Amino acid sequence: MKHILWQNEILTLLDQRKLPLIKEKVECHNYKDIAEAIKNMTVRGAPAIGAVAAYGMAMAAIEFNKDPNCTEHKSIISYLKSAAIHTKEARPTAVNLRWAIDRMLNVAKSSEITTSKFIANLMVDEANKIAAEDIIINKSIGEHGTSVLHEKTRVLTYCNAGALATVDYGTALGVIRAGSNKNKIKMVYACETRPYLQGARLTTWELLEDNIPVTLIADNMAGYLMYKKMIDLIIVGADRITLKGDVANKIGTYTLAVLAKEHNIPFYVAAPLSTFDNDLLDGSQIPIEERDREELVSLCNVQIAPPGVNVFNPSFDITPSSFITAIITEKGIIKSPNKEKIINHLGECCNAS
Amino acid sequence: MKHILWQNEILTLLDQRKLPLIKEKVECHNYKDIAEAIKNMTVRGAPAIGAVAAYGMAMAAIEFNKDPNCTEHKSIISYLKSAAIHTKEARPTAVNLRWAIDRMLNVAKSSEITTSKFIANLMVDEANKIAAEDIIINKSIGEHGTSVLHEKTRVLTYCNAGALATVDYGTALGVIRAGSNKNKIKMVYACETRPYLQGARLTTWELLEDNIPVTLIADNMAGYLMYKKMIDLIIVGADRITLKGDVANKIGTYTLAVLAKEHNIPFYVAAPLSTFDNDLLDGSQIPIEERDREELVSLCNVQIAPPGVNVFNPSFDITPSSFITAIITEKGIIKSPNKEKIINHLGECCNAS
Repeated sequence: MKHILWQNEILTLLDQRKLPLIKEKVECHNYKDIAEAIKNMTVRGAPAIGAVAAYGMAMAAIEFNKDPNCTEHKSIISYLKSAAIHTKEARPTAVNLRWAIDRMLNVAKSSEITTSKFIANLMVDEANKIAAEDIIINKSIGEHGTSVLHEKTRVLTYCNAGALATVDYGTALGVIRAGSNKNKIKMVYACETRPYLQGARLTTWELLEDNIPVTLIADNMAGYLMYKKMIDLIIVGADRITLKGDVANKIGTYTLAVLAKEHNIPFYVAAPLSTFDNDLLDGSQIPIEERDREELVSLCNVQIAPPGVNVFNPSFDITPSSFITAIITEKGIIKSPNKEKIINHLGECCNAS
Repeated sequence: MKHILWQNEILTLLDQRKLPLIKEKVECHNYKDIAEAIKNMTVRGAPAIGAVAAYGMAMAAIEFNKDPNCTEHKSIISYLKSAAIHTKEARPTAVNLRWAIDRMLNVAKSSEITTSKFIANLMVDEANKIAAEDIIINKSIGEHGTSVLHEKTRVLTYCNAGALATVDYGTALGVIRAGSNKNKIKMVYACETRPYLQGARLTTWELLEDNIPVTLIADNMAGYLMYKKMIDLIIVGADRITLKGDVANKIGTYTLAVLAKEHNIPFYVAAPLSTFDNDLLDGSQIPIEERDREELVSLCNVQIAPPGVNVFNPSFDITPSSFITAIITEKGIIKSPNKEKIINHLGECCNAS
């Protein structure tokens, strides 16, 4: 089942808030629908929201064509710029969102033919291209990643860096999928990932569908599993990586990295090049999204904490590069990542080199 | 509201599975009811289940008196021994359960007057004494513990080591309560403590009732808070402490201890002397209870993971003494705990010295 489907100028998303028990589709008819779907986590996962935002930009171009006079905007570029600002605000931490929107905007800006109809067609093509590329990129990440696996590897993963977090195949789960194809995976331990339960709901579901052995644990059990020597390595995805190699990822990732260091367990980050933020050197500069208190005080509409309790709900954390064994991208593996190695790895796509 | 109430030969418990939103009482009419209430977590917390088990033993004595011929047992001692075995099996990790039951059994065995009626009265008195002592002990732990607090301390605590985990006042929360009375507490961060949510449900509730500032976080956020320098120290309770100072406590405690070490944050364990296991040197010898898969795949009867997913659900973990800054008991503070210091601290109550 494709979870991101572009058809007849409508983007249909599988509602990830309700998986795995309810498979409900949500239709997005304009760019504001797309921004809302990103914001309310109908779709989540850094590469996935990048691809979806690209379709949002294509939709904005189509909207402008359908009714170019209904807005205050003088030109399609002006309209696209406002759509870009609106969509970028949906979620602040994952840089792929910004990356995809800027790529789409650049396509529009650099078009030699400047009719709005032509630009809209160009943008639909570009969004389709971003989506198609994402799958190829993930398969390449998976192939490179298999080199860090050995026979009968027991992997711990976190949140969902799978098919549902990308257009298909996944980043961290891409490595696990590729490893499973080579009979290298003995067991995947999936942390449930509170408060949104992406691990319990999405990662276990994906792996069960693919017949890859998976065991669900609560996030607070990871340390005990490492202490009991039940984990050979950890692979997670990323929402933003700085030039120094500091990684923003789902809240709880940093704790796993500290545990991995204490137990001498390799800690890998799998992510496409679009996750690197050429503008940032240091993780402390990454904005950390704080989400609604309701995510912690209730679950599936059942209240689990006293009404009125104060809540702190950061959605991401920063793992400094010193905790990371290697970053796996579609271009290969960056061992013991640092600024020099990352700039070298990014090569031409890095403006900061 | 007393959560453990002995009246008219019935023990009434506040059902901790339903707090804080539903305040429902459960009556225990015999020792098997008590064992079941411990097993199904109507009551939980090492000192609390010790006190409740003591009442269970008193109830067994009363039962025998009411119908001494209805069982296969020749004597009240024989009947009490079988009640002891049954109740000890309810939960394997917390040693206070065994401690309280053995203390009750010894009272029966060492009685000079051996009529079953006399022994039953003795045992009711002893259970009341254990319950009363527990409150005094906790207040003493609290007083000793305030010396590790400074002005405006931001404390992280885990699970519920409060009034509900004891007869009243609490161990870790006893320190926080005593500290709050001395204006030393700026904020208590309560980890929600999956899967049973003792932190989200019970610790936040207790602290809100006492007007002590509390903020709820998910377990996976603790590392980020330490990284952001938002935590001054950590205080947790304990379910069993070995002579070396290794501590069994709620799953996730070890992860906090590793994080504390990485961030140079003091890590304190608050527990009564009854939590020490004189028979064990090393934490690896402590049995770790594994609980039902349902605790992880559903919450408040709402399914949150795919049906049939494999689950690992250990209920406790071991924190080696090397991670512990100090253990706080009713007799004082054991800094950098080791075998020598602990045996010295336990003094006369330690058989292994």
